[in-house]
Amino acid sequence: MSFHHLQEIEPRNPLPGCTARFVHSQSMTLSYWNLEKNAVIPHHSHPHEQVTNVIEGELELTVAGQTQRLTPGSIAVIPSHAFHSANALSPSFVIDVFYPVREDYR
Amino acid sequence: MSFHHLQEIEPRNPLPGCTARFVHSQSMTLSYWNLEKNAVIPHHSHPHEQVTNVIEGELELTVAGQTQRLTPGSIAVIPSHAFHSANALSPSFVIDVFYPVREDYR
Repeated sequence: MSFHHLQEIEPRNPLPGCTARFVHSQSMTLSYWNLEKNAVIPHHSHPHEQVTNVIEGELELTVAGQTQRLTPGSIAVIPSHAFHSANALSPSFVIDVFYPVREDYR
Repeated sequence: MSFHHLQEIEPRNPLPGCTARFVHSQSMTLSYWNLEKNAVIPHHSHPHEQVTNVIEGELELTVAGQTQRLTPGSIAVIPSHAFHSANALSPSFVIDVFYPVREDYR
């Protein structure tokens, strides 16, 4: 059991305009993204299932060739190995959830 | 792959003062809770790992006998089978993530 607060988690900048904070449970990784306007997450895929939750801002998300404009309250379920990309239409706060753990984010 | 919006997910009221919406991926369940002030989630446990994310409001969360006051940005990692309970100190919005899928929430 552990308690965390975003203000106490060291931020990383894996991509231009993208600040990320990570929390891992035994089987899952949660990533908390602050995106600047026009930040881009390039087309990629991974074996992990991902669920993307838009908390603040607007995002254009493409999953397996289908593009949607996401707003606060939008949720995208991205299956294992599905190619996806995103660009921030405004400053955004997004929570991504992964199964299994993203060992590359530890 | 699927896109959802909280406004389009049918709400359920599993407990007094608690409105919940659910999204399932292949391996995970995400639950989106709107809690009224003084809403209580009684002491319980389940085999699923849980990560609780406070988005809005304040919550008192007890996990395995340890109580913390959670605010926006707070994250609690609750291991499999750990007993936990919560009460809302103000109107709150909370996202819980579970592995594996909560079949009881389907």
